[in-house]
Amino acid sequence: MSAAASPTRAPGQVLAKLTGRVAAGEGEDDAVPRVEVRIAELLGKPAAAMFPTGTMAQQVAMRVHADRRGIRTVAFHPQCHLEVHEEKGYSAVHGLTGRLVGDPFELINLTTLTEVREPIAALLLELPQRDLGGQLPEWDDLVAQTEWARGAGAAVHMDGARLWEAQPFYDRSHAEIAALFDTVYVSLYKGLMGISGAVLAGEVDVINHATVWRNRLGGDVSRNWPMAMLAERGLTELLPRMPEFADRARKISALLSQIPGVHIVPDPPQTPMFHLHFDAPPQAVAAAAQQLREEGTLAPPRYVRPSSSPWQCSVEITVSEQLDEVTDTEIGDLFTELLARARA
Amino acid sequence: MSAAASPTRAPGQVLAKLTGRVAAGEGEDDAVPRVEVRIAELLGKPAAAMFPTGTMAQQVAMRVHADRRGIRTVAFHPQCHLEVHEEKGYSAVHGLTGRLVGDPFELINLTTLTEVREPIAALLLELPQRDLGGQLPEWDDLVAQTEWARGAGAAVHMDGARLWEAQPFYDRSHAEIAALFDTVYVSLYKGLMGISGAVLAGEVDVINHATVWRNRLGGDVSRNWPMAMLAERGLTELLPRMPEFADRARKISALLSQIPGVHIVPDPPQTPMFHLHFDAPPQAVAAAAQQLREEGTLAPPRYVRPSSSPWQCSVEITVSEQLDEVTDTEIGDLFTELLARARA
Repeated sequence: MSAAASPTRAPGQVLAKLTGRVAAGEGEDDAVPRVEVRIAELLGKPAAAMFPTGTMAQQVAMRVHADRRGIRTVAFHPQCHLEVHEEKGYSAVHGLTGRLVGDPFELINLTTLTEVREPIAALLLELPQRDLGGQLPEWDDLVAQTEWARGAGAAVHMDGARLWEAQPFYDRSHAEIAALFDTVYVSLYKGLMGISGAVLAGEVDVINHATVWRNRLGGDVSRNWPMAMLAERGLTELLPRMPEFADRARKISALLSQIPGVHIVPDPPQTPMFHLHFDAPPQAVAAAAQQLREEGTLAPPRYVRPSSSPWQCSVEITVSEQLDEVTDTEIGDLFTELLARARA
Repeated sequence: MSAAASPTRAPGQVLAKLTGRVAAGEGEDDAVPRVEVRIAELLGKPAAAMFPTGTMAQQVAMRVHADRRGIRTVAFHPQCHLEVHEEKGYSAVHGLTGRLVGDPFELINLTTLTEVREPIAALLLELPQRDLGGQLPEWDDLVAQTEWARGAGAAVHMDGARLWEAQPFYDRSHAEIAALFDTVYVSLYKGLMGISGAVLAGEVDVINHATVWRNRLGGDVSRNWPMAMLAERGLTELLPRMPEFADRARKISALLSQIPGVHIVPDPPQTPMFHLHFDAPPQAVAAAAQQLREEGTLAPPRYVRPSSSPWQCSVEITVSEQLDEVTDTEIGDLFTELLARARA
């Protein structure tokens, strides 16, 4: 069940995929520029550059927008990756100030944006917002937010770590969605089932500027073809399946919502990702999950997230090829058993 | 001839090596901590951490030494990688001032060090110094330099990108050499014929501190097992061959020194690396090398380095497994022909 245990990321399978691509004559010398060009075209941007991590790509995007505007404040959600997971690199490394927008448990909206009372260099929007179960704003709201930022002279940056998963919801091309943004970061491994890596796309001068910082920060990796070639595999084989994965996420979540003590966020899921909220303490769920991992072949997610109530917690589900060999019924049975044990 | 064209780095071969290691049961989940521990033990340091690049590892080492001493000046050679190849990241990212020590074309020595007239947080020494053909100071001089720095309250950091190649010269263990230094950076790909990656080793508190900056800078790569497992291959198969490679470098250089217009730096080579200086203009050598590349199977090095004289230039030779199938005579013939054409 858990992506961490995904057999499609087992090294034997990863190496077999890479070996197949090399044997098929896909060159490796140009694998990095090839994936950069492919993603730039997909996003309708003139330029794109690969980075070792999304952390570096996004901090650099913020830095470049700030430097080009002479403004050190950037705006993002309180649960933004920059705020929570990067030991405040945006501040410690780049001298930026983060203006947190809106409530930690709700998406940014136009009302919360208009409460920003200082000039900002950039607004970062995460599509979909992972920590809210993969929620997405409606298209009109997204347009209004990006127009507000651009009207205020700010750049708009997309944390598109899961843009691949978000695109079917809008029923618009990747390029149409990306057109609302000055810069777009996408992940080469999450939804694409790669190993690691990120790409930042935007205008030529902005991406050129970004690659100066990539070098300064130590991000010019000497060889990166395994990451690039696995991303190509994902773009070819998994991107077309995203609507199917989102449909299945809705089917599975409908099934799971029947289990007493289980709630779906968002309900219905807007992407292949959703959160399961349990009416059970996180320690009890973690203990039951550990038991099931030791007993069975289908493992529940490893990370059990505490909530503001000590009697509730949540886990994250993402539907992708790692569930191809698992039936919806097996998933339903797994969580029925998990909840029964956690609430016993 | 050129490492750039090394067949041992062709992806088919790289993937076959990795597949062999995975099939042999070498786990990938712990490949990164495994190579960190192995290198820490080899260097006799309590802790080690993998970084995506040497650039990041070394800037972070400088940063951590500076922060822990409250001093922003760090000292290194004018041809140090930090000074030349990183768009001044040490200054732009970390707010450090570089105190360049000594002449660009000579190794740092105790006399040039004692001319430093301000407190420094760290002294960086590159062993061997690549841009000087892989030169190494004599052991007693190295001890004197590191004692000078430590006596002045500074940390001593080793740019050990090619420490693997340097070790046989000192006829001391890696740990004995590393003991002169507070932190040591080693490369996972150059002499080890890997893809990319670096390790920084030192005391536990220093390496812990360094990993905070690794995250802030965007260096916490989600999965890095291919790089780690290829480094393990290199440590097992290539590290024991370094004395042999250095011996062969001396044999090859003795042969090449017979060619009119060719000089060896250093003569004799101290490591498997040396530079060939040519009495010929760089443009002429580059044109002749390009011809030979188009004609033959054995290719001369791609990068022809200009010198302070417009009638001279140099190339870099490194002996490793990529020359296993090439004879000394073939190498001699290649450069004889190169010089004949360049000087025609």
